[in-house]
Amino acid sequence: MVASEPSDSLSYRDAGVDIAAAEAALDASKAAIRRSHGPRVLADVGSFGGLYSAKGLGDDPVLVASADGVGTKIRVASAVQRFDTIGRCLIQHCINDVLVQGAEPLFFLDYIGVGKLDPTMVATAIKGVADACTDHNMALLGGETAEMPGVYPDDEFDLVGTLIGVVEREHVIDGSRVRAGDKLIGMPSIGLHTNGYSLARRIVEDRMNLAYTDPFPGDEEGRSVADVLLQAHQCYLEALRPLLKDPALHAMAHITGGGVPGNLPRVLHGYGAKVSRAAVPEQNVFAQLCAAGDVERDESWQAFNMGVGMILVVAPEATERVESILAESDYPGFLMGEIGDMDSGFHYLD
Amino acid sequence: MVASEPSDSLSYRDAGVDIAAAEAALDASKAAIRRSHGPRVLADVGSFGGLYSAKGLGDDPVLVASADGVGTKIRVASAVQRFDTIGRCLIQHCINDVLVQGAEPLFFLDYIGVGKLDPTMVATAIKGVADACTDHNMALLGGETAEMPGVYPDDEFDLVGTLIGVVEREHVIDGSRVRAGDKLIGMPSIGLHTNGYSLARRIVEDRMNLAYTDPFPGDEEGRSVADVLLQAHQCYLEALRPLLKDPALHAMAHITGGGVPGNLPRVLHGYGAKVSRAAVPEQNVFAQLCAAGDVERDESWQAFNMGVGMILVVAPEATERVESILAESDYPGFLMGEIGDMDSGFHYLD
Repeated sequence: MVASEPSDSLSYRDAGVDIAAAEAALDASKAAIRRSHGPRVLADVGSFGGLYSAKGLGDDPVLVASADGVGTKIRVASAVQRFDTIGRCLIQHCINDVLVQGAEPLFFLDYIGVGKLDPTMVATAIKGVADACTDHNMALLGGETAEMPGVYPDDEFDLVGTLIGVVEREHVIDGSRVRAGDKLIGMPSIGLHTNGYSLARRIVEDRMNLAYTDPFPGDEEGRSVADVLLQAHQCYLEALRPLLKDPALHAMAHITGGGVPGNLPRVLHGYGAKVSRAAVPEQNVFAQLCAAGDVERDESWQAFNMGVGMILVVAPEATERVESILAESDYPGFLMGEIGDMDSGFHYLD
Repeated sequence: MVASEPSDSLSYRDAGVDIAAAEAALDASKAAIRRSHGPRVLADVGSFGGLYSAKGLGDDPVLVASADGVGTKIRVASAVQRFDTIGRCLIQHCINDVLVQGAEPLFFLDYIGVGKLDPTMVATAIKGVADACTDHNMALLGGETAEMPGVYPDDEFDLVGTLIGVVEREHVIDGSRVRAGDKLIGMPSIGLHTNGYSLARRIVEDRMNLAYTDPFPGDEEGRSVADVLLQAHQCYLEALRPLLKDPALHAMAHITGGGVPGNLPRVLHGYGAKVSRAAVPEQNVFAQLCAAGDVERDESWQAFNMGVGMILVVAPEATERVESILAESDYPGFLMGEIGDMDSGFHYLD
């Protein structure tokens, strides 16, 4: 064979997998990952498994684990090539998921699946995850980036992960204290968090006929569609920390996929709920999307958080005290209903 | 508006997300998930975070965590609509990843991303994950299924997850005992495990011109291409358990993406390695793929495991003892080289 002839030899790279690109992405994010590592992390980046010392985590520690992704919010990030904030959304989403059972976060592992691996994009996304971990005093303990031609279209990717937190067993919040007559206190979301993006994108693209760089209708700050839709998933850990060991806090529901009716009943052990939608402060983003999409009211409350990111179930006599504690935080609470009798189901009051 | 007129109202389902389908998939797999739950699991399926009691896990316990997927092996599963075995591949892959640091598995969380959610397919995949967890005495503690139209094509999906294991700190295997002159003992893979599928599929489809239901060339058992390629990722936990606290076991490398040269150096703390390829028993699947794809030899050892699933780094005087212990297992070891001097690099002997 003459050297200049094209070779028939197939390589891994010919098949769409560039191992060097994955290594470059990891190298570019290593410093940010290491910054998230505290004294409990016993191995450097790149070991087969991340090592986390669990010595002295508590007298009777319970690990609380949650796996999640950011859904099709990632397509908005792809559309405007902005990959630095979705990691924070993922981390803060997962923190809330373990927080509702009383846990503080310990560490996180991420996974990025991608059609064609762009080292800069992947490094930016991983750095976003690592920085959010650092900000919340947790370690980015491990992760995996997989280039999977065909499973993902070339310009699409998925970012998911698993968070491990810990709570002392006597302080696990599991809803077993919930009783009829308990009050529901909502905490405000800021925008869509990570839910309802398939519907929101459909409305933006097909009904509003907007580009992601266009101004979002009615936005008082004059932000673009992308800015409004990529607003970070809010984290309620700091606001709720003073309440986590409070016996008057009977349960919490993180409002994610399925909205209020899909999430609140998950923590009520069969008790009913009576929810006032009018009590939740209206946000322009939901009003605009629902009007443009002609989304039915009940449907909108299943697809979107509609302005409430977390609901606390509180002993009636503690309502004012809890509200005054939340008033000190970035997420002032609002009374939005109460717990109904056992087996009375989920109902809207308005 | 007359009732029979088509509505302009957009729903979440119109946008490609069917919440009921996701719930149906979870319902259909709940029994299998619950079977994996031992006494340390403190919450039922469906809680925001999975609860796992960490009381008494050890005097100085170290959690070992690994996140991974099954790569484009999933496209072979999709091609033949066989979703029951990929969960086992994922679990056994992740067990090996924490095993190399001396850890036993505790629990797992899975994530399935899918373009269009088929409840039967997703339930079958989750049940496969749960059954594998049960078989290895670990809990499927949580998970997430996300329907993401556009991120994934309708008929594609990704299955990934995170495993948490535990090892007593004094028994962490971290490669710090590795010395020049240590022996390398390989343990046989069975087929591709979960690596090299993008290249393998390209060869099968474009060079061999085979359908996945065709017989695989040269297979002594007359199996189909799909049967050969979907062979489960082998798990070395049972075989290696008698050696985990043995001070003569200096390091282990799980041979995954990047092959022997991409994985063995990860655990050697800068020591070199001299590897005999001829010492690794040949397997028909690699011989056929490499011949049909005209894959260069070095390239094939990076893309595929080439017959070795795990490499042990062993004190020279313990070689025979380790080999005799492995001879009792399903994965008899073979001597395949030795550790070189510090900074001497990775070399093939043949």
